[in-house]
Amino acid sequence: MNKIYNPKQDTWLEILKRPTKTIDDIEVTVKEIFKEVQKKGDEAVAKYTSIFDGIALDNYEVSNEEIQEAVGLISSELKGAIQLAKDNIYKFHRAQKTDKISIETIEGVNCWQEKRPIQKIGLYIPGGTAPLFSTVLMLAVPAAIAGCKEIVLCSPPDKKGKINPAILYAANLCGVTKILKVGGIQAIAGMTFGTQSIPKVYKIFGPGNQFVTVAKQLATQFGVAIDMPAGPSELLIVADDTAVPSFVASDLLSQAEHGTDSQVILVSTSKKLIDEVEIEIQAQLEVLPRKEIAQKAIENSKLIFVENDQTALNLINDYGPEHFIICSEYDDFYCNGIVNAGSVFIGNYTPESAGDYASGTNHTLPTNGYAKNYSGVNLDSFMKSMTFQKISEKGIQNIGKAIEIMAEAEGLQAHKNAVTLRLKSLEERE
Amino acid sequence: MNKIYNPKQDTWLEILKRPTKTIDDIEVTVKEIFKEVQKKGDEAVAKYTSIFDGIALDNYEVSNEEIQEAVGLISSELKGAIQLAKDNIYKFHRAQKTDKISIETIEGVNCWQEKRPIQKIGLYIPGGTAPLFSTVLMLAVPAAIAGCKEIVLCSPPDKKGKINPAILYAANLCGVTKILKVGGIQAIAGMTFGTQSIPKVYKIFGPGNQFVTVAKQLATQFGVAIDMPAGPSELLIVADDTAVPSFVASDLLSQAEHGTDSQVILVSTSKKLIDEVEIEIQAQLEVLPRKEIAQKAIENSKLIFVENDQTALNLINDYGPEHFIICSEYDDFYCNGIVNAGSVFIGNYTPESAGDYASGTNHTLPTNGYAKNYSGVNLDSFMKSMTFQKISEKGIQNIGKAIEIMAEAEGLQAHKNAVTLRLKSLEERE
Repeated sequence: MNKIYNPKQDTWLEILKRPTKTIDDIEVTVKEIFKEVQKKGDEAVAKYTSIFDGIALDNYEVSNEEIQEAVGLISSELKGAIQLAKDNIYKFHRAQKTDKISIETIEGVNCWQEKRPIQKIGLYIPGGTAPLFSTVLMLAVPAAIAGCKEIVLCSPPDKKGKINPAILYAANLCGVTKILKVGGIQAIAGMTFGTQSIPKVYKIFGPGNQFVTVAKQLATQFGVAIDMPAGPSELLIVADDTAVPSFVASDLLSQAEHGTDSQVILVSTSKKLIDEVEIEIQAQLEVLPRKEIAQKAIENSKLIFVENDQTALNLINDYGPEHFIICSEYDDFYCNGIVNAGSVFIGNYTPESAGDYASGTNHTLPTNGYAKNYSGVNLDSFMKSMTFQKISEKGIQNIGKAIEIMAEAEGLQAHKNAVTLRLKSLEERE
Repeated sequence: MNKIYNPKQDTWLEILKRPTKTIDDIEVTVKEIFKEVQKKGDEAVAKYTSIFDGIALDNYEVSNEEIQEAVGLISSELKGAIQLAKDNIYKFHRAQKTDKISIETIEGVNCWQEKRPIQKIGLYIPGGTAPLFSTVLMLAVPAAIAGCKEIVLCSPPDKKGKINPAILYAANLCGVTKILKVGGIQAIAGMTFGTQSIPKVYKIFGPGNQFVTVAKQLATQFGVAIDMPAGPSELLIVADDTAVPSFVASDLLSQAEHGTDSQVILVSTSKKLIDEVEIEIQAQLEVLPRKEIAQKAIENSKLIFVENDQTALNLINDYGPEHFIICSEYDDFYCNGIVNAGSVFIGNYTPESAGDYASGTNHTLPTNGYAKNYSGVNLDSFMKSMTFQKISEKGIQNIGKAIEIMAEAEGLQAHKNAVTLRLKSLEERE
């Protein structure tokens, strides 16, 4: 672990640097598969499913029987846990519904804003060792609240041609309308162009490896929106002597086990706490099943001592963490002052895992500094805001002259004409 | 003009096809200039300003004296018009402020969502013949309401090293914090990387030619967000015999004068109206100063007759117009049923120009079918939504077990540990 004392501001950029990956090699592969899926549809999907997942499938759609089988495989204990998480996620995202905003900007000029659901969306859920059924909840629950008509889920089949039952269970529970056994680049390409089996969607959500990440980026060049750009997961904790060192260490480790490139940072005004957390990390690390992964991430982690809370806050806003835990006497100071963070966890009894699973907030959050310019996934991610205006005769008389003057000044005569014609017709009538 | 009667649904895609451009050639140029600006900063900006704008500048920042000079050059008539537009835009966007959303999802688990401004934003305003000072209003007014700290505006200098006074006047009026005489690719690259003169920003807004469009796309690969992908402007009108043909024609022409690739579509259940509008267009076209441009766009325009309003609505939702005018007996039917449109204009006295300038709605809207998955610019475009959670001892006892079960099922033991440690410490205390 790297302990850093009182770093000068001009070194922050270097200290807080995130690992960058070159994606040039991957891009060529991704572009090729996109081209082939665009041209050949299911034939190409079959080819790459065979290459990457090692299985030939006749039918990509998960059947009702398969879903029922999955439901039978899930313990009632896990079903209960999923239900509790789903309820909390539902409540928090339901509360995000916004009313129509309506205003008469000037007499006779009524403007309003309404949100309408994105009609067709795609969710990508990775396969592999960790079946991210929690991500199914995080994406399908708000999609259903938003009112998206088609909610398509793609996830890669295992060697037996199956999707993990917990993923199927969660998808079925949360109103996914179609589940497809397709993964990787071919899944993203399929949802971008549409194939015989895979519906074309308007927006793609969800995590994935670097191939999926690059594929999602490429999808945006074909008119598809994505939830946000991706990067390795990260956690920054600010803590002082009111924090419990073992809790802090456990949170840092829960981030570290995600991957060797996970970013783990502790900022503190207490050298004592830093030392105690360091010892705790070593002790807790020993017994973790994913020790090797966590160990590597911890090696790159930073424990940073700063003299005061204002400096800490400045440094944190410079970094813009995805997850930000506050265990400080001055938690209000940090809550009010933080402008760049994905999700904020306050107090000793608010571990990051709570937000990852069950508190109700969304766990699909901006990494890689994107907290400076992107929101985490929320109800609005599944909707578009549209504006409406209705202008009366009186209304056009009130703003018509201003429009004519401005259109003329911008050299757009036909824009002016559209108003002039209307004003004249009203004058003539009088 | 192309009149089309009762097109079958399987031909809609072809009929409503938008012009596509190849951007591969441009991409090479854009990438090169980005590389150079990243490496050499102002030196590269100077080089390309000299090449593209034909002028060498010592200082890119617009001075206070230049702003005062511009203020003196604007007629009081235009000042008044700009003020009226600004007031309406302010009122409508101010009304979009959302309160903190706070909810206790389960006893002891408090979750809330707050929006915080994006700290540094960049506005790009094209130069050339049509000085788009209206776009300055549309972007700077909501940015100021959102509370963005740095609002940087870039616009290319003319041959005398000046920016159009109306742009300077509007920028100064609306709280832009720095105005720079830099245009094109080098402006976007400058705001992406930061140079000695140009601040690095987190999100770039604003229109531009295809070089600027490609540059904005490239900027997203370097961590900068953009307002939305761009395409040629477009208008679709649905009208029946309650519409005034000359008004409809004037609206179609106001769209057509934007550019030869503008998309202009009329959908109607009345053959009579289609014929009358066609005649009106020819008459009005003759006297337009931008006749040549409008003529070309009109040649590609479509006048589509359909049997009934439901078919019309389906076709319109398939297209997803940027601007959508409704002049129909059944305007409620269309208002309620439209799911894919940028901004909607209702009734005979609501021309598109009203929204372009002064009704209060934003004119930066999704083109090219992006109304299916993107919002137009609105107050939220300048903010990020962040979530917070604070869990009490009681709260973690309520959701802790569910988190443990789910983390275990996903194979993430350290995530489970972070909860287990806390639950144990509470048990021990009891």
